[in-house]
Amino acid sequence: MAKAFLDEDLLLENEPARLLYHRFAEQMPIYDYHCHLPARQIAQDTRFQTITEAWLAGDHYKWRAMRANGIDEQYCTGTASDQEKFRAWARTVPYCIGNPLYHWTHLELKRYFGIYGLVLNEQTADRIYAAANRLLAEPEYSVRGLLRKMNVRLVCTTDDPLDDLQYHRAIKASGFEIAVHPAWRPDRAMATEDIQALNKYIDRLGEITNRDISTFDRYIEAIRQRHQFFHDNGCRLSDHGIEWLYAEPYTDTEIQRIFVQIRKGKMLDQQQAVKFKSAMLYELALMDAEAGWVQQFHLGAMRNNNTRMFRLLGPDSGFDSIGDWELARSTARFLDRLDSQGRLTKTILYNLNPKDNEVMATMIGNFQDGSYPGKIQWGAAWWFLDQKDGIYEHLRTLARCGLLSRFVGMLTDSRSFLSYPRHEYFRRILCNLIGSYVEAGEVPQDYELLGRMIQDICFNNARNYFPMECP
Amino acid sequence: MAKAFLDEDLLLENEPARLLYHRFAEQMPIYDYHCHLPARQIAQDTRFQTITEAWLAGDHYKWRAMRANGIDEQYCTGTASDQEKFRAWARTVPYCIGNPLYHWTHLELKRYFGIYGLVLNEQTADRIYAAANRLLAEPEYSVRGLLRKMNVRLVCTTDDPLDDLQYHRAIKASGFEIAVHPAWRPDRAMATEDIQALNKYIDRLGEITNRDISTFDRYIEAIRQRHQFFHDNGCRLSDHGIEWLYAEPYTDTEIQRIFVQIRKGKMLDQQQAVKFKSAMLYELALMDAEAGWVQQFHLGAMRNNNTRMFRLLGPDSGFDSIGDWELARSTARFLDRLDSQGRLTKTILYNLNPKDNEVMATMIGNFQDGSYPGKIQWGAAWWFLDQKDGIYEHLRTLARCGLLSRFVGMLTDSRSFLSYPRHEYFRRILCNLIGSYVEAGEVPQDYELLGRMIQDICFNNARNYFPMECP
Amino acid sequence: MAKAFLDEDLLLENEPARLLYHRFAEQMPIYDYHCHLPARQIAQDTRFQTITEAWLAGDHYKWRAMRANGIDEQYCTGTASDQEKFRAWARTVPYCIGNPLYHWTHLELKRYFGIYGLVLNEQTADRIYAAANRLLAEPEYSVRGLLRKMNVRLVCTTDDPLDDLQYHRAIKASGFEIAVHPAWRPDRAMATEDIQALNKYIDRLGEITNRDISTFDRYIEAIRQRHQFFHDNGCRLSDHGIEWLYAEPYTDTEIQRIFVQIRKGKMLDQQQAVKFKSAMLYELALMDAEAGWVQQFHLGAMRNNNTRMFRLLGPDSGFDSIGDWELARSTARFLDRLDSQGRLTKTILYNLNPKDNEVMATMIGNFQDGSYPGKIQWGAAWWFLDQKDGIYEHLRTLARCGLLSRFVGMLTDSRSFLSYPRHEYFRRILCNLIGSYVEAGEVPQDYELLGRMIQDICFNNARNYFPMECP
Repeated sequence: MAKAFLDEDLLLENEPARLLYHRFAEQMPIYDYHCHLPARQIAQDTRFQTITEAWLAGDHYKWRAMRANGIDEQYCTGTASDQEKFRAWARTVPYCIGNPLYHWTHLELKRYFGIYGLVLNEQTADRIYAAANRLLAEPEYSVRGLLRKMNVRLVCTTDDPLDDLQYHRAIKASGFEIAVHPAWRPDRAMATEDIQALNKYIDRLGEITNRDISTFDRYIEAIRQRHQFFHDNGCRLSDHGIEWLYAEPYTDTEIQRIFVQIRKGKMLDQQQAVKFKSAMLYELALMDAEAGWVQQFHLGAMRNNNTRMFRLLGPDSGFDSIGDWELARSTARFLDRLDSQGRLTKTILYNLNPKDNEVMATMIGNFQDGSYPGKIQWGAAWWFLDQKDGIYEHLRTLARCGLLSRFVGMLTDSRSFLSYPRHEYFRRILCNLIGSYVEAGEVPQDYELLGRMIQDICFNNARNYFPMECP
Repeated sequence: MAKAFLDEDLLLENEPARLLYHRFAEQMPIYDYHCHLPARQIAQDTRFQTITEAWLAGDHYKWRAMRANGIDEQYCTGTASDQEKFRAWARTVPYCIGNPLYHWTHLELKRYFGIYGLVLNEQTADRIYAAANRLLAEPEYSVRGLLRKMNVRLVCTTDDPLDDLQYHRAIKASGFEIAVHPAWRPDRAMATEDIQALNKYIDRLGEITNRDISTFDRYIEAIRQRHQFFHDNGCRLSDHGIEWLYAEPYTDTEIQRIFVQIRKGKMLDQQQAVKFKSAMLYELALMDAEAGWVQQFHLGAMRNNNTRMFRLLGPDSGFDSIGDWELARSTARFLDRLDSQGRLTKTILYNLNPKDNEVMATMIGNFQDGSYPGKIQWGAAWWFLDQKDGIYEHLRTLARCGLLSRFVGMLTDSRSFLSYPRHEYFRRILCNLIGSYVEAGEVPQDYELLGRMIQDICFNNARNYFPMECP
Repeated sequence: MAKAFLDEDLLLENEPARLLYHRFAEQMPIYDYHCHLPARQIAQDTRFQTITEAWLAGDHYKWRAMRANGIDEQYCTGTASDQEKFRAWARTVPYCIGNPLYHWTHLELKRYFGIYGLVLNEQTADRIYAAANRLLAEPEYSVRGLLRKMNVRLVCTTDDPLDDLQYHRAIKASGFEIAVHPAWRPDRAMATEDIQALNKYIDRLGEITNRDISTFDRYIEAIRQRHQFFHDNGCRLSDHGIEWLYAEPYTDTEIQRIFVQIRKGKMLDQQQAVKFKSAMLYELALMDAEAGWVQQFHLGAMRNNNTRMFRLLGPDSGFDSIGDWELARSTARFLDRLDSQGRLTKTILYNLNPKDNEVMATMIGNFQDGSYPGKIQWGAAWWFLDQKDGIYEHLRTLARCGLLSRFVGMLTDSRSFLSYPRHEYFRRILCNLIGSYVEAGEVPQDYELLGRMIQDICFNNARNYFPMECP
């Protein structure tokens, strides 16, 4: 008999899985070591006027589905009212069957707003809109309230090196019981695609650090100063959103010349750009190693493919997709250079194209040096892969090519405070996988061992891996 | 207990799937928007002498299996008698377990000839040969009869721009109740691999269009004239069989020079060939956009790998396989150029290497502009992927990265009138997938919603998407 | 109800699978046509002092897992005692859930040592260590005893062309009832990465063959002499461990010049190296074709990624991973060149990146010429892919793109005499796959046909395919 929609045993297809989830995984707190939540909203403990504001604004996943459903841009990023936008989304939801948006949508309505037994569609849109807005008006639905409701213990945001981190300091000063740390994302510091913007960025860095940045060495010094500033404000984690791990050979002279060219506002050719980025990534990795941070690399996105819409809306508006270039050789070269010098810090690699799963899963093994269990990590299924099959394949592949037990687990990677059920979703899939091993006789029915494994992946491994205090 | 071989619930592994298939999918008509059926045979309402003629002649899938089974070429494409060839195929069938040929073979024998409870092998070959031939001699087993038997409503063939479409006009004039449209496949117009053949092609085009084709511009004008001729004869659909979506930058001067070089009969180097093909694809895409056609691109085949056999048998004889070059960046560049100019018509992309599934599934999202639901499509699992796992992966991937509900569904892509059960096969897999969602509680048990979704994918979406009248 | 851990129906998830395995597969002997067992140990019928010596020494799979588990190198390849190393491995085993090492470990303890109902971990380590060592001291636990216990009929080792094959002759002379053949692996003869080592190799070849190797032609002649020597000593099989099937165009003059440059000790640039390797592979393939051998190509490993550890430990120490370069075009070019000349011998292609599965599965079809069933083979899931999912995907992909029935089946590819249960593991997965077809009604319940198919893949196909006498 078919199970009821989204019931408490969602995705738990065998008895051991149900036992593992409900006994061990469900109650574990959340360690969200990578997301895009705005620190400002946490500092100000923002309250949302409508669910559209909290749920649709900034969510390019939903916009993308709406466009594919023939919905006009006016209702995605345009001037339509919040209610009209919500209706347009509601009209799209029934067409999302098989897409994680279908599950996320209903799981989020259930977990945050207690709405279930009612699917979102054109008919139910207004009723759900009103009910959700009513709750959002209540004090415990402020952004801090939403984090508490989800049992979050620690959050790392994603921040540009030029950020003054005032909101992070404000959060700290406020005594908020959930730890909120900045994370260092220096993508703009090496974005040679737009030389003008890069120069403005360097100029601004010069102002902030009170330096004249005329050479590459001074550029690195200035960045290093910001790195220290981030460290002083609790940052212990970097992140890079790049196509691949740039690791072209270069000489210092070449880089110095390229930097001069940048400062003159001249475009780089492809070779120069890759050399420059290779030098930047290396220097940034040294900073992370010296400071004892964890470094993250998100590899493989092909961004801003729609020029017309990029001009209208800028980046992160739903026109990105998955690249298919080579990753293996450059990744090995990058990591090997650091390892050879004893400067390879804890590292997490994320891929976006599932064809690279085995490359990543076996790559990390090349640089496990016995100094820390799971020192080099293959990060959780990300973005387009953050769905049932993607998570399942990531976990299975990690298990068969390495040690799943040492995995630091799930992160949210969202711009919305309503995305935390993605952890529940992940945990159900994890428990289902381990449960399926038990059911098939592929592991012993040792629930002490398996329960610990699951709790480690849900929370403990991350808490131990990252060099941050966790409340 | 194991199910009986090929019973009515084949591939339907859960109760909701059975319900969905038998109540909603089974009776839907077929909209075959891409196949390689010969218009001549439809015009002449051909009758086949033997099942070998209808089933083995031209079927390089079967030849390929036979060669792998150690069968001499004589029995594939050679001079053996029809009965000998049939026996050789029958001898191979038991070795095809796990291959779609095993299912197709028995499903086709069952659906067209009522033969079941009897598997094809060396022992049964002669009996089945005689029985099938007996039926083929009956009037309702003419090619039109075969199309009627399968509830086909519309067929698009695949035609060269030089084709005079006489058979299409004859079909139309005959009042045949199934719509038969030509489709425009200009591959030969840009086949620079054989410069002599290309020049002959251009010369012939000049004769047909009464033009002196000495420049690239004139070449495009002449092709455009044929495009209009196809349009006047009911064509609303183009198709390209290419390695990747050529989208190299080029200047008009470069292309004009390259064209002069072609007309002088000089081989192009690789760079020139790609530039020329990039220009051709772009110009052809403009024609499709202006005429409001749908354009299709079949990407990723590596053809004619066996030189020895290519010399003996020519193309499409079973010596093709799957390429593994990059697709993402060029595809984005090609589509973006057209979109930027407001000239991106409805488009269907097909890939042959399943490693590119996620690239395709996310690529289409970059160019959904809200103007039509599912404007850009990721086409059905094709050729080597047209089998249970391939179809299943295509559907799952499309669902999780986009909107499966908006998919235009299956096509036959066959040279044989006996291939229509591939639609049944596809529909069973589709229903099984959706049924598995229901059974797992991943979607609500809303059969109105799900039944409509399935009927849309089986037929309605295609009928609405393509700009052709459907009886 | 969950099955007991590693019971007799492990991996057999349906009734037909259980029937197929226990009735047809289980008792079939083993034809191990590719492994890395040391001929010396077979010749000397070595006895192991400890299970560490037999099981951990040389096993870079286990070292890799230990390093990922935070175990110091001392306990992997270092100076720790055998018992300490065993304990370190035992401590790691519980973290291997989901990894094939978890299954192999317990299956090997069960099949060789009768240890089951007891999982290996820190608590059980000493007890299991003692029990296993006790058995290893008994005469039937010599390496020949271990081979007999596993019902092995034939073994092909992996040997360098310079090997004098004295141990193979000694084995033959000893009248050992299991056939042991050398296999020809000339990787070092084209290893241009280290020009000094290559020159030493060529010098040594010159001494052995009593030739002055100053030109490429003489180099090939000298290698050919060794090829004949291997043939005379029972070799009928070559193997190559390469990144891809080098097949760049080259001229004889170019190769001659490159060879002179090698002999002068000058590094080759990348282009030269690929040309040289292309010429070498081609010449070696001609030798195999003339001698009627089977040729194997293991493609796609990215080796020695950790320079620091490579300097300490050399190759094959657990710092290799999976590459992601293009394979399709070069592979087709290589095979086509030989086929065009009527010199393509029986060939087995292995890939390491599962993204290439469909490329391989369809590539082999391009060169099946009807002369022998399954003449061109896609080899069994290898190394990182030699696990449940990898084997399953290989078998399914082979089945749907070709003829699984003609597959020559599993090999061990191990350095350890304790790895033979990998055949059992493979057979269970094979039977489970075929059983699942039966259960779903996708094939008839014809156990004569299916049983023969399974026995063919387990043993008969290999015995017929390889040109060696099998006892």
